[in-house]
Amino acid sequence: MSKQTDDLFKSVVSHAKEYGFVFPSSEIYDGLSAVYDYGQLGAELKNNLKTYWWKSMVQLNENIVGIDSAIFMHPSVWKASGHVDGFSDPMIDNKDSKKRYRADQLIEDKIERYQKDGKDDKAAALQTDLDTALNNDDLPRLKEIIEEHNIVCPISGTKNWTDVRQFNLMFATQMGAMADGAEQVYLRPETAQGIFVNFLNVQKTGRMKIPFGIAQIGKAFRNEVIARQFIIRMREFEQMEMQYFVRPGTEMEWYNKWKETRLKWHLALGFNADNYRYHDHVKLAHYANAAVDIEYNFPFGFKEVEGIHSRTDFDLKQHQEFSGKKLQYFDTEINQNYVPYVIETSIGLDRLFLTLLCNALVHEDLSTEERTDARVVLKFPAPLAPVKAAILPLTKKDGLPEKAREIMAQLKLDHNVQYDEKDSIGKRYRRQDAIGTPICITVDHQTLEDNTLTIRHRDSMLQERIAVADLEKFVADLVSWSPMLKQLI
Amino acid sequence: MSKQTDDLFKSVVSHAKEYGFVFPSSEIYDGLSAVYDYGQLGAELKNNLKTYWWKSMVQLNENIVGIDSAIFMHPSVWKASGHVDGFSDPMIDNKDSKKRYRADQLIEDKIERYQKDGKDDKAAALQTDLDTALNNDDLPRLKEIIEEHNIVCPISGTKNWTDVRQFNLMFATQMGAMADGAEQVYLRPETAQGIFVNFLNVQKTGRMKIPFGIAQIGKAFRNEVIARQFIIRMREFEQMEMQYFVRPGTEMEWYNKWKETRLKWHLALGFNADNYRYHDHVKLAHYANAAVDIEYNFPFGFKEVEGIHSRTDFDLKQHQEFSGKKLQYFDTEINQNYVPYVIETSIGLDRLFLTLLCNALVHEDLSTEERTDARVVLKFPAPLAPVKAAILPLTKKDGLPEKAREIMAQLKLDHNVQYDEKDSIGKRYRRQDAIGTPICITVDHQTLEDNTLTIRHRDSMLQERIAVADLEKFVADLVSWSPMLKQLI
Repeated sequence: MSKQTDDLFKSVVSHAKEYGFVFPSSEIYDGLSAVYDYGQLGAELKNNLKTYWWKSMVQLNENIVGIDSAIFMHPSVWKASGHVDGFSDPMIDNKDSKKRYRADQLIEDKIERYQKDGKDDKAAALQTDLDTALNNDDLPRLKEIIEEHNIVCPISGTKNWTDVRQFNLMFATQMGAMADGAEQVYLRPETAQGIFVNFLNVQKTGRMKIPFGIAQIGKAFRNEVIARQFIIRMREFEQMEMQYFVRPGTEMEWYNKWKETRLKWHLALGFNADNYRYHDHVKLAHYANAAVDIEYNFPFGFKEVEGIHSRTDFDLKQHQEFSGKKLQYFDTEINQNYVPYVIETSIGLDRLFLTLLCNALVHEDLSTEERTDARVVLKFPAPLAPVKAAILPLTKKDGLPEKAREIMAQLKLDHNVQYDEKDSIGKRYRRQDAIGTPICITVDHQTLEDNTLTIRHRDSMLQERIAVADLEKFVADLVSWSPMLKQLI
Repeated sequence: MSKQTDDLFKSVVSHAKEYGFVFPSSEIYDGLSAVYDYGQLGAELKNNLKTYWWKSMVQLNENIVGIDSAIFMHPSVWKASGHVDGFSDPMIDNKDSKKRYRADQLIEDKIERYQKDGKDDKAAALQTDLDTALNNDDLPRLKEIIEEHNIVCPISGTKNWTDVRQFNLMFATQMGAMADGAEQVYLRPETAQGIFVNFLNVQKTGRMKIPFGIAQIGKAFRNEVIARQFIIRMREFEQMEMQYFVRPGTEMEWYNKWKETRLKWHLALGFNADNYRYHDHVKLAHYANAAVDIEYNFPFGFKEVEGIHSRTDFDLKQHQEFSGKKLQYFDTEINQNYVPYVIETSIGLDRLFLTLLCNALVHEDLSTEERTDARVVLKFPAPLAPVKAAILPLTKKDGLPEKAREIMAQLKLDHNVQYDEKDSIGKRYRRQDAIGTPICITVDHQTLEDNTLTIRHRDSMLQERIAVADLEKFVADLVSWSPMLKQLI
């Protein structure tokens, strides 16, 4: 990270804390590593992001429905999905420092050092060695490589290593209170499996015809060894996933369609399109035959926000095998039974939240020849703004607060609005800028005379006068989801 | 349960499954005990219940804000709250059957048996014994009572008991991957503590003045020994909690206000008021100085849906002590620093969901002299209905489907609506009745001539004709939250 982008990221993190978007979890107890809480404005923004996604997926698409499956699932689910055996990192401990590392990352670091030292041949050979060992799940070989290349612990500086062992990333817990032992269950590491196991329930009770999708928003948990970069990699996080069930053989067509649709969705937020790009996966997961990330240009570089994966029929077939239940669909158009293929779209909601902050946060220099001035403003799209409008009586007297409260009483039936009468009007405008409120509605003496109000716009800082009678429609149009949704059709 | 109420409850459970409201979790693996998934209609209904609560709490009240804190919290939180030491049930195992029981429930069952046998004196004496033992946390005495009264295991029939031990209801898991041991953390057993530890963060960054509230919706987890009655007692469940921070000495005033406000909220749903009642707690929790439940008359009897508790300053004081951080508020009106008192309102969202199904499900006999007829209908309040309207072309030809799709394309920008052209119009009406859709919009040949539609109302089954041009406002008014919210002001 350059100094400038480092500063930008720091200002995003501190703004998020200062204005009640994101707090470290259990902060009074000095926090819990890689876990965060959403504050009073963060919770609103997060809810609005969920609403945007749900509306665009479920409401807009006749053939997509949403479910809400539990975090706890039958332990066999994770055997079938491959998570019990395969969802792990190869770890190695240094016996002197008592620190644990990912074995492959220690080796990757060494490769980088070779490259920096101009030893490109050595680097290339080591990379080949590493890839072979990883592909063969050859843990003893990983240890040998570490020893052969004299890789030392960054803390103790010694080569006193344990063997390499697999460390599963799922959180386990004990369920039940049977005298003869409780059952070990896991916190789901992804929401997708909740959709797969409900595939037939939804298809039958909802009378769904292929192609159709099942969408879900919910928490997932991964015991990440190295959790870092604010809310980018957390141990508890939220996913918005949609599994689209299609006829085998048509999956690439749908994969391409969803790849396009999902980028459109991000761009409909209205920010700089240059900050988004596709990144095709070269190395595919065991269940996929095509995969692409939509990446966002965070201050620390491009990073995945959403993944679109062609998951084939891997998951449904595994669940067929492990559960002994048929998970097939009878396609009346071709008179055939089959296990559908699946296209998945999967967003990390917390990362998406961070793109909003990074996109929206602007430090504006408003200096003129007479005086220096600046403001901090969050330029959220109006439907996503935590507070939709602020109602401000110009002064605290002459009946202005009473009039403002009348307006407040009406607007709050439909929108999340704020009332503020403290400090000068200029200060109040800046306060609303900093939390991203699209408009301020000012009640002044003229309001009492002719029933008009001043609307002050956040981004342009321009003001206009409108009739009180027109206010309700004005605000409703401003925060309507329709314009964003129309871009997706 | 009488035969009649038993049947009613069974029909609620089976309707919930058949129409995609609630599925047993991981059903293809024969389910996971006391865990359920919400299907495509259940997820919508649950979301709408959350919206109703959030709007009435956060949007309607200037001095209440919402947060979204993590499920994982610092382990010290649960020491401070008393959950590590006190959140447990006294359990006893039968060595022959290997079954585990709650010791107090075994004794309660015996008391009931004495009563049935007309041995009221014996029952009363045993109740006193039990209460004394529980109040003194006297586990050896519980075992003595079980032995003295010859209580046997219902499975093995023997008195071969272990000692009584405390069994903590929190789910524990290991976080982190340190070589020198991971940290034991818990899945939160209540959302309230996430509010308490964020009290100062929210108060300061949100510039809140007492009295003010913090609201939260989120999952909580309890390793219930006996989980039962469908979604009434689950191991994973969702809470909607609000903590209202007040000046010490004013808590009873606010307690009474919230007690009243919360009942109003349930009654604003528009169902039979006789099905709701208050139940004052006689025995108070260690943190409370007043507590009342709002109970709903489920088919199996009155049971808690929401609790209103005056929690005093217990939690904040405990967190002060355990964290070493001051959790005080400076009240400028009286120039005084204090730890606020707290009034809590706490809903079990899943139970609330069940009240909706029980309230709304009606089997109507529509028989006339000519023929027998009946329908099943879910009479949800329109803003809460999973599907807001169904758009139905009368026939599949003559351009009616095209016209219906035009209307669909417009309405789906704002509402969750369904299109259906399969089967006779009567069958389609009944299908929508069964999932609680407030109106059906029928496109017929007259529509093509004069641009009018038939609106068929779910509850009355009456039809009216309106102009296509008026449809958008008609639907918007029908599903607006305002009428419900206005009842709360």
